[in-house]
Amino acid sequence: MQKVGLLLGGCIRSWKLVRMASSGMARRAPLANKVALVTASTDGIGFAIARRLAQDGAHVVVSSRKQQNVDRAVAALQGEGLSVTGIVCHVGKAEHREQLVTTAVKLHGGIDILVSNAAVNPFFGNLLDATEEVWDKILDINVKSAALLVKAVVPEMEKRGGGSVVIVASIAAYSPFPALGPYNVSKTALVGLTKNLAIELAQRNIKVNCLAPGLIKTNFSKVLWMDEAREESIKEAMRIRRIGKPEECAGIVSFLCSEDASYITGETVVVGGGAPSHL
Amino acid sequence: MQKVGLLLGGCIRSWKLVRMASSGMARRAPLANKVALVTASTDGIGFAIARRLAQDGAHVVVSSRKQQNVDRAVAALQGEGLSVTGIVCHVGKAEHREQLVTTAVKLHGGIDILVSNAAVNPFFGNLLDATEEVWDKILDINVKSAALLVKAVVPEMEKRGGGSVVIVASIAAYSPFPALGPYNVSKTALVGLTKNLAIELAQRNIKVNCLAPGLIKTNFSKVLWMDEAREESIKEAMRIRRIGKPEECAGIVSFLCSEDASYITGETVVVGGGAPSHL
Amino acid sequence: MQKVGLLLGGCIRSWKLVRMASSGMARRAPLANKVALVTASTDGIGFAIARRLAQDGAHVVVSSRKQQNVDRAVAALQGEGLSVTGIVCHVGKAEHREQLVTTAVKLHGGIDILVSNAAVNPFFGNLLDATEEVWDKILDINVKSAALLVKAVVPEMEKRGGGSVVIVASIAAYSPFPALGPYNVSKTALVGLTKNLAIELAQRNIKVNCLAPGLIKTNFSKVLWMDEAREESIKEAMRIRRIGKPEECAGIVSFLCSEDASYITGETVVVGGGAPSHL
Amino acid sequence: MQKVGLLLGGCIRSWKLVRMASSGMARRAPLANKVALVTASTDGIGFAIARRLAQDGAHVVVSSRKQQNVDRAVAALQGEGLSVTGIVCHVGKAEHREQLVTTAVKLHGGIDILVSNAAVNPFFGNLLDATEEVWDKILDINVKSAALLVKAVVPEMEKRGGGSVVIVASIAAYSPFPALGPYNVSKTALVGLTKNLAIELAQRNIKVNCLAPGLIKTNFSKVLWMDEAREESIKEAMRIRRIGKPEECAGIVSFLCSEDASYITGETVVVGGGAPSHL
Repeated sequence: MQKVGLLLGGCIRSWKLVRMASSGMARRAPLANKVALVTASTDGIGFAIARRLAQDGAHVVVSSRKQQNVDRAVAALQGEGLSVTGIVCHVGKAEHREQLVTTAVKLHGGIDILVSNAAVNPFFGNLLDATEEVWDKILDINVKSAALLVKAVVPEMEKRGGGSVVIVASIAAYSPFPALGPYNVSKTALVGLTKNLAIELAQRNIKVNCLAPGLIKTNFSKVLWMDEAREESIKEAMRIRRIGKPEECAGIVSFLCSEDASYITGETVVVGGGAPSHL
Repeated sequence: MQKVGLLLGGCIRSWKLVRMASSGMARRAPLANKVALVTASTDGIGFAIARRLAQDGAHVVVSSRKQQNVDRAVAALQGEGLSVTGIVCHVGKAEHREQLVTTAVKLHGGIDILVSNAAVNPFFGNLLDATEEVWDKILDINVKSAALLVKAVVPEMEKRGGGSVVIVASIAAYSPFPALGPYNVSKTALVGLTKNLAIELAQRNIKVNCLAPGLIKTNFSKVLWMDEAREESIKEAMRIRRIGKPEECAGIVSFLCSEDASYITGETVVVGGGAPSHL
Repeated sequence: MQKVGLLLGGCIRSWKLVRMASSGMARRAPLANKVALVTASTDGIGFAIARRLAQDGAHVVVSSRKQQNVDRAVAALQGEGLSVTGIVCHVGKAEHREQLVTTAVKLHGGIDILVSNAAVNPFFGNLLDATEEVWDKILDINVKSAALLVKAVVPEMEKRGGGSVVIVASIAAYSPFPALGPYNVSKTALVGLTKNLAIELAQRNIKVNCLAPGLIKTNFSKVLWMDEAREESIKEAMRIRRIGKPEECAGIVSFLCSEDASYITGETVVVGGGAPSHL
Repeated sequence: MQKVGLLLGGCIRSWKLVRMASSGMARRAPLANKVALVTASTDGIGFAIARRLAQDGAHVVVSSRKQQNVDRAVAALQGEGLSVTGIVCHVGKAEHREQLVTTAVKLHGGIDILVSNAAVNPFFGNLLDATEEVWDKILDINVKSAALLVKAVVPEMEKRGGGSVVIVASIAAYSPFPALGPYNVSKTALVGLTKNLAIELAQRNIKVNCLAPGLIKTNFSKVLWMDEAREESIKEAMRIRRIGKPEECAGIVSFLCSEDASYITGETVVVGGGAPSHL
């Protein structure tokens, strides 16, 4: 699998500089030569992001908790001719985080991009019914592990002279999803984590931004649109006409990781179809 | 000690309706007959809040982790003629949270007000240097325990037909304090927790608001103003002329718990002397 | 009319220090001796604010565009034993603004508090249907006149060593009301005006804060709740259980003008019953 | 492969669908065939945006108030092989706005994109020193004219089945620039205008987003960085390491107008190098 990826790497590099005679501009794959880690990327929004980063020229390491999901995602993306490898990673485990980093470095020589997408929601119901265990799990995975994963990746980015981190939060950080209280709170924390990391990492030439997807049609959000009545009610509550697609969250992540976003850091971009969020 | 509090209770009730002949208005102690729990209230902002709630007519249960601090605070406030009792409470421990609630109910027959002020910051330095243990401790105490304490108190508030919760966050929720990364992130989470709780508890007639103190002169914030040079630099960075006093955070908390704030819920009020925060 | 106000002034001062035997505390009318201007205060939220400031001890000058409305409001408030006088003022006219200030100074010797509540909404419909004239009128009255009124009042506040300004915006500053586009935009501008004034006036010891009422039952907002169906629909859209009352906006204004808010400036407080607004 | 690129370069339209053999993906100029109006685009940020939209495949109509500036900008961009035309337009004048629209439609058959960048700041100093005339001018040009220009353009976008608007505000919308009070306030209003328009125009398939540049090196912002001492002081106040370049604001605008941003509307993206703004 990796061999295919490596072979493709050579091909992809070759189209990185398509010169346009008429304008004197070089039109490059915006993430050419970049190495990107994307967690929780074998499905839904993470998968769409991984695919897009690879389409834009990056070598992408996809990961999630189950080997078979990783295998399926890698096969699918390689089947599209993309430079993708995979590794099992439970971001809540320190040794997994380390392994993710070392594998990426071994395969591709370094890390330029991290998309931290891993999140759990072991709970659906009233916020006040959430137990201590629920809070522990959600804060552990959604907040602490995100911070620690950045910590693990930064030294590698520094070796490359800089890098780009995108943390995936949610529009629920601003405007709570019903029945997902602790999840919502963890996402608000990520907006703060983004600001804090951006300030601290600016001097190392590492940008940190945040994607806040609105209501996107994925397995994760199924509980919010599982039947037509609920879908209609949530669309009305969120003042949106349609539920978004995972692909619609991917372009902005690639953009934020590209040279074009060189002066954007600490920002959260909501991809929510106009649902209420923040000024 | 409790006896004094109970005796005073009678006296306090007696001034609750001081009729003003000149204007025909009744001027009441705004929190008369209310029972208030304030965590981390033996020092600094929490102490100032406890005192103010008591001055405004509430029976206040102060608490913090050490018996001697509780004793000192209770003695000081009772010495001012206030209706105050105390109990040791480490909000991170479920049995302590339960005990806080049952004690308050036993003493005063119920709970109307909760001010959740407990917070730790076991870390000063770069965000990326924060260990897993640091994150665990900060998220546990500052976020999870706040949520679980509200959970423990709500049934008592319901019995009284409603109540008022104030969660103490920080201006750092919006505009990070330097070198306090994980603390800042936990405070951003609390702004989100406030919104989520407010929505969920509205139907039970419980309001949930948030106080976000700016740079206030307390032992907790000492690291930010410990010498004159640092104080000057942080005042300039925060665009403020002077550091605030704990008392300046207390009035708004009492206000938010009073009948005057009957239509205010889900709000965070920054008490920051004009430092940058949010629109 | 003014004579009554002046006479009452003496009486009111007499209840400013009601000593509470039981607690040893002095309980003062929080705005005793303060002189307050409130624009657009003969009805709705402005009227409720004027009444409350007077109840809290201030001498209040009410104003609006029509003499008969001013007379009615003054009569009503004086009938309650409050220290209130009135003057016709169209805040869009420079000479009216000047006259408001000079009259207040002549009557009461100075100005301590300004509540800028005047606003128009000469338009109900699609934002894109708003004409140049509509925009002119709304920006003129709601934004420019507010700034110029503060400008006219500040020199008087400086003579008193400081003061307090409260600008009345709307929750629509954050979360647009349907069919009130230009009005909504003008209210967002006021949130910005508040921040800017707060920073600039801090050195003169003048605080500037902002009240953002949610859906409050007034003639002004009638269009939003005029029939039961519309009221239900807007309550659902705003996730609130009930529409607020003007009185529920008044306490926070008095609070923000009191000594208790000495470290609060540049802040916008939403009084919205939990409707979506800002983090 | 590069040879193919060079051949294709000869006609920009022809490279809109460059099939990449290696990956099977089609790589298009993201704004191919789109017609874009950019106001105030003969210099600074507007010029950089106009160039970028043209580089990304759009036919761009640049404009500003002076013929010679328009001529110079058009010559420069055409000299780079870009599809650019120009027209004099003072956005404060209704007939100019109309002419801008009709010219663009005559030249290119319709309008898909509007970037509203025109702004004035006829004032540098204390907010309270701003006269009625200053406020009139700033609100007229920066807010009202932006709204009316969108109004003029929307019918043309509807004919094309949709479109994309980007309003240029400023980081000062959130975090005021010193000595630019009325300008700052007008920019806050634009963030609100963006939200309002986004909600209203969603049903017509028109997205409305907002760019909020931070401290960017342009003639406009010269007053903020004119000497080294001031530059250093403002960099420290804004917690940024370097001042941005106009080009760094251009990529995000192109992105927001592209198909990649299909689910992003009502959003403000700060391009501020990490300076304090909003959560």
